[in-house]
Amino acid sequence: MYNFEHTIQSLNWNLKPINLYRPIEYTLESGGKRLRPMLVNIASKMFGGYDQETIDKAGLAIEVFHNFTLLHDDLMDNSPSRRNKQTVHIKWNANTAILSGDAMLIKAYEFLQQIPQRYWSNAIPLFTQTAIEVCEGQQYDMDFEKDDNVSIDQYFEMIRLKTAVLLACSLKMGAIVADATVENQKTIYDIGIALGIAFQLKDDYLDTFGSFETLGKRIGDDILCYKKTFLLISALKEADDKTRQKIQYIVRAKDISDKDKISFVTNIFRELKIDELCEKEIDKYYTKATQLLDDLSVEEHKKEVLQALIKKLKVRDK
Amino acid sequence: MYNFEHTIQSLNWNLKPINLYRPIEYTLESGGKRLRPMLVNIASKMFGGYDQETIDKAGLAIEVFHNFTLLHDDLMDNSPSRRNKQTVHIKWNANTAILSGDAMLIKAYEFLQQIPQRYWSNAIPLFTQTAIEVCEGQQYDMDFEKDDNVSIDQYFEMIRLKTAVLLACSLKMGAIVADATVENQKTIYDIGIALGIAFQLKDDYLDTFGSFETLGKRIGDDILCYKKTFLLISALKEADDKTRQKIQYIVRAKDISDKDKISFVTNIFRELKIDELCEKEIDKYYTKATQLLDDLSVEEHKKEVLQALIKKLKVRDK
Repeated sequence: MYNFEHTIQSLNWNLKPINLYRPIEYTLESGGKRLRPMLVNIASKMFGGYDQETIDKAGLAIEVFHNFTLLHDDLMDNSPSRRNKQTVHIKWNANTAILSGDAMLIKAYEFLQQIPQRYWSNAIPLFTQTAIEVCEGQQYDMDFEKDDNVSIDQYFEMIRLKTAVLLACSLKMGAIVADATVENQKTIYDIGIALGIAFQLKDDYLDTFGSFETLGKRIGDDILCYKKTFLLISALKEADDKTRQKIQYIVRAKDISDKDKISFVTNIFRELKIDELCEKEIDKYYTKATQLLDDLSVEEHKKEVLQALIKKLKVRDK
Repeated sequence: MYNFEHTIQSLNWNLKPINLYRPIEYTLESGGKRLRPMLVNIASKMFGGYDQETIDKAGLAIEVFHNFTLLHDDLMDNSPSRRNKQTVHIKWNANTAILSGDAMLIKAYEFLQQIPQRYWSNAIPLFTQTAIEVCEGQQYDMDFEKDDNVSIDQYFEMIRLKTAVLLACSLKMGAIVADATVENQKTIYDIGIALGIAFQLKDDYLDTFGSFETLGKRIGDDILCYKKTFLLISALKEADDKTRQKIQYIVRAKDISDKDKISFVTNIFRELKIDELCEKEIDKYYTKATQLLDDLSVEEHKKEVLQALIKKLKVRDK
């Protein structure tokens, strides 16, 4: 079992100025799934790369970048908590969240620079390209909150950028530091895209159908923000005119409590069987990831760890 | 004359999503002195490096980074205008300023990656180290606003981080892409530090003693924020107890207009001759930069352009 938690917890953030570094430490010690470093590690070993220090540094770069995006996203969405802890802009303030986030983004590059220089020409441009795409995805996500005509295609492009490319980058980064062939780097990237889309669909699903205790965050935030998730876009498409107008009225009404808004919209999702539709879609992308993994030219037994992870992600409830 | 303006204005920001890229274009087209790319260019040519495309890419990386810091700093300081134009968080909103700034930081790395790979091992870590130091400087600057016991030494360390290291990085970057010796890279970096400290002292000076028309920004912001500038720290040190308490009372008083606060504190600075003290300090650091330039092992006539720039910066009023 890969012990990335030890690697990230042993970083020294006891640096000055403390108001810059303490929020970074706070953010990184909050745990989370550490999915991205896990993907770097799995991919590297699948392709015969066992240099643990290099794998750890690449994983740190991506995990610190990922946590930077959460920190700034939580500020922009004004989310009060994540992983059962106050978000940085609540515990400190908005300026701290901005500047500590900026420093994390730079620190991510610093970790990436610690991998051997022969990998830089592949690894650094991949990282930069991915990082800019994640920003684009976040911008689309915010744009969509004010747009009533978001199509399913636009939604999928948004989650490809916002979520999938970073999982794909993680897998490809592992392949790069294992000197995998260009062909295999490409296929593993595509596996990451399919996995990432399935992962974000599941995230959307859990934001409405998950539980606070398990997830460690408020349920129904997406509904209150009128976020254009797979659930909402599909519901608006499937609903008759009356129900559609009702949804649009309710989520914007000022005289209805948040709790009632969430339960009303969730019930409509259930009536229209949008939960089942979403589960089917999630299955579709996990299946695609599995099929691509079958195509990869690597000995079969080396694929088992990634195959097992795909299965585990499919049934996750947090 | 180096035409960097043409280089930066010919970038294509007509990309999607427009809400991410349009604020970047707006920020970069606002002009400014373009001092940092100018330093890259001057240093490179001083050491015999004439690859203009490489110089331009390195200059773009640093200038885009610098404008990212201004964008986020203006948001954190809630400054309404810069260079006679509304700041991004006013023209758009805070979230746009956060996310477009993040994208600019990543784009800066993208430009840096466009220099030949043989320079990466020097250039990228220099850039990353500098970027993190700039964040540290900004954090100290914000911390100092709430700290009544900032010493002159702490102030100088803050402006070294916040301003000087980026000018030093610009000069050293020019030296790197000109294949200058390690010794010369070090000296030119130190010239940048001296230049940068002089530059920031002058900035502080102009924030109080400059003019709105020439600077394109409100005069006296530093006084209103109770910013621990060279002027304020020196005044608090030089003043008698009564005057010191008066300054501290006035800037925090809720029943005194901003205009009166600014004129009151400015008058005290003049009475205590803090303006002259500051001008002397500025001179000292420009002289240090000039002396270091004398030491540089480069043919004398090649030093003339940088020498001329140092003189020009010394007498600037914007």
